[in-house]
Amino acid sequence: MKKANSKGIIETEGGICAPKGFKAAGIHCGFRKNTSKKDLALIVSDVMCNAAAVYTQNKVQGAPIAVNKEHLKDSRAQAIICNSGIANTCVPGGVEISRETCRLAADALGLDAQDIIVASTGVIGQPLNIETFRQGIPRAVKKLSYDGSDGAAKAIMTTDKVKKEVAVSFHLDGKRCCIGGIAKGSGMINPNMATMLSFITTDVAISAEMLKYALESNVVDTYNQISIDGDTSTNDTVAILANGLVGNPEIDRQGEAFDLFCVALRAVTETLCRGIVKDGEGASKLIECVVKGAPTGRIARIVSSSVTQSDLVKTAIFGEDANWGRILCAVGYADADFECGRMDITLSSAAGELEVCRGSEAVIFDEDLAKKILETDEIKIVIDLHDGLKEAVAYGCDLTYNYVRINGRYRT
Amino acid sequence: MKKANSKGIIETEGGICAPKGFKAAGIHCGFRKNTSKKDLALIVSDVMCNAAAVYTQNKVQGAPIAVNKEHLKDSRAQAIICNSGIANTCVPGGVEISRETCRLAADALGLDAQDIIVASTGVIGQPLNIETFRQGIPRAVKKLSYDGSDGAAKAIMTTDKVKKEVAVSFHLDGKRCCIGGIAKGSGMINPNMATMLSFITTDVAISAEMLKYALESNVVDTYNQISIDGDTSTNDTVAILANGLVGNPEIDRQGEAFDLFCVALRAVTETLCRGIVKDGEGASKLIECVVKGAPTGRIARIVSSSVTQSDLVKTAIFGEDANWGRILCAVGYADADFECGRMDITLSSAAGELEVCRGSEAVIFDEDLAKKILETDEIKIVIDLHDGLKEAVAYGCDLTYNYVRINGRYRT
Repeated sequence: MKKANSKGIIETEGGICAPKGFKAAGIHCGFRKNTSKKDLALIVSDVMCNAAAVYTQNKVQGAPIAVNKEHLKDSRAQAIICNSGIANTCVPGGVEISRETCRLAADALGLDAQDIIVASTGVIGQPLNIETFRQGIPRAVKKLSYDGSDGAAKAIMTTDKVKKEVAVSFHLDGKRCCIGGIAKGSGMINPNMATMLSFITTDVAISAEMLKYALESNVVDTYNQISIDGDTSTNDTVAILANGLVGNPEIDRQGEAFDLFCVALRAVTETLCRGIVKDGEGASKLIECVVKGAPTGRIARIVSSSVTQSDLVKTAIFGEDANWGRILCAVGYADADFECGRMDITLSSAAGELEVCRGSEAVIFDEDLAKKILETDEIKIVIDLHDGLKEAVAYGCDLTYNYVRINGRYRT
Repeated sequence: MKKANSKGIIETEGGICAPKGFKAAGIHCGFRKNTSKKDLALIVSDVMCNAAAVYTQNKVQGAPIAVNKEHLKDSRAQAIICNSGIANTCVPGGVEISRETCRLAADALGLDAQDIIVASTGVIGQPLNIETFRQGIPRAVKKLSYDGSDGAAKAIMTTDKVKKEVAVSFHLDGKRCCIGGIAKGSGMINPNMATMLSFITTDVAISAEMLKYALESNVVDTYNQISIDGDTSTNDTVAILANGLVGNPEIDRQGEAFDLFCVALRAVTETLCRGIVKDGEGASKLIECVVKGAPTGRIARIVSSSVTQSDLVKTAIFGEDANWGRILCAVGYADADFECGRMDITLSSAAGELEVCRGSEAVIFDEDLAKKILETDEIKIVIDLHDGLKEAVAYGCDLTYNYVRINGRYRT
């Protein structure tokens, strides 16, 4: 969070409950056989929130997404309910199940079903049992607390090994504000949304319109720039609730306050995104690919993602092999218009920095240093196209034996 | 080759030397340390040929491709020289090395350098030593023989485990004609050409224009529909030589003779393509994905490729897990315009056939039969979109521990 710090944005405790007036809970409800794994998360604001969400670009979409699109027509929501284990996708009557889930949550919370956001993650094509929700929701409501972020963060996990949870604080008009977030991966992660759920809360007062704008311009550089396996899932959702309890003058236009909100939001989402790829299925290393000197930001995003999505680059990084030819190859097949003949490629990590290619041709480099750089668990690839002034980053992870193991036997 | 058989096209012996007047050889020349691995292939026609080639769509292209584009401006060639081990890509002076390679081959064969096609496959960014060619080419020329296809097929292999070689015979105007082909994989294989080289020979008399047309319309459904790892390499080349020694009336327009030639060519290229994916790096199973009921052929090709390229589908097939949700998901993110809500999905193999999804929703199916189907080594996925009349096939392979092992340590 280096950038963030420069604007007085600091990391804080409490996750999604760091902002005022947000309770959360996570319980084992019964969608999973393993009773020690929480599988139902509930997030509730004390007051009505402005809300926005973005969804997967997959043409096959989970039933909850259809319901959320209806519920967020008025850009307002007060609670989020989410189960893990079953995706509620491609099953007869799935939309009705998601609607009924919202009704049950609304009844238990004394809210309107229209103000509930619903999400599901897990196996596609298996039916969700509404009875499990009927029994579980009241228990989740009882467990709601102002320090319940941890439980909710754990309940949305599927094959994730670690929870993804972060919060930042900053000051607007002298008032301390917070943005908190949780997220889950960890397979089917790819640009244009991942099998990824992320729920963000804030106590900042911000208009529905500006909240939507902030979220949509954020995801282009964060959630849409992460890739674990190139598979864009059916259920991806990033939702944000802003309850305004800080009492700042509502942010209703672009300007200094909005910019600060966006930087703080970026600190939250970037941390969650790095967490998602670092905890990618089977991943042992995070790969950060920076593309500089691109003609446009869009081209920089496409090229950097092409590199982090290459199975050959990912296996080379896993094998700690400085096979830069594969990086260059992945740049070359990126679907965008740019000049390929002037590329410089640098590998770096905590262990050092090393140029491995200059002007798109081989340079002699120190293989021992390359090895040391690649032995660390966060590898940065910087590619300068020397074809413009724009820059972008993409995040990915290595491709390992464990990825194959995990995904060869997911349903069993 | 079922389709092929129906037109009197039969598989025959001899590979690229099955057509009259083609000699070939493969030797160990010194590009590789392992002296038991052949690394230089030479293919020569007794007479001048009409020639055509298609190349990788990667913007980063190996030096040999630049030289071939010059040499094939006149659509004529008489020999092909190819080394394995080093790709001659992204190295200073690479184009000059490829030109000099052609000159050396031309001198040794008594031909014009302009009439030589050159190819290299292997590691990117390492320099090729022209002295190795200077010493090896005369030895390869000495070894040329009318039954040398086996040696050439072996010499172009990199991480391939088995050689890819096939030939067919058929009759044109009462004369027996042949088409032969060899190919190599086995990583960086993806639509719009693979890290894949394929050399095809024929003794049919066909005009340069029709030969080009036959090749270009062929690759759309064959080489461009295979994927091993989604990485499109820098050096892919499919080249065809037609020497006309059969003496048939030259095929110079569309019609019955041209159609038969195309069907025979398809039998050759389809066999090579199936061979390439079945021998994909680390692959244990071939995946054939047929998409039916698509609005256009292009959409059918895009959707079927999306499925064979999905790491999650590939690992599920490796794990023999009938996780059809992943298939549906990969259809959903295919970048094309079609209706996603009416999909039927069937899995089949030598062990049986099973519908796993109907109308884009789950159906209850026999998990034991699913297991049996997936235990075989050639799996067919048939997807009917019920959104048109067009059909296409894509070929891929599973993603295995061995893929990761092979690609984690390629350079070492």
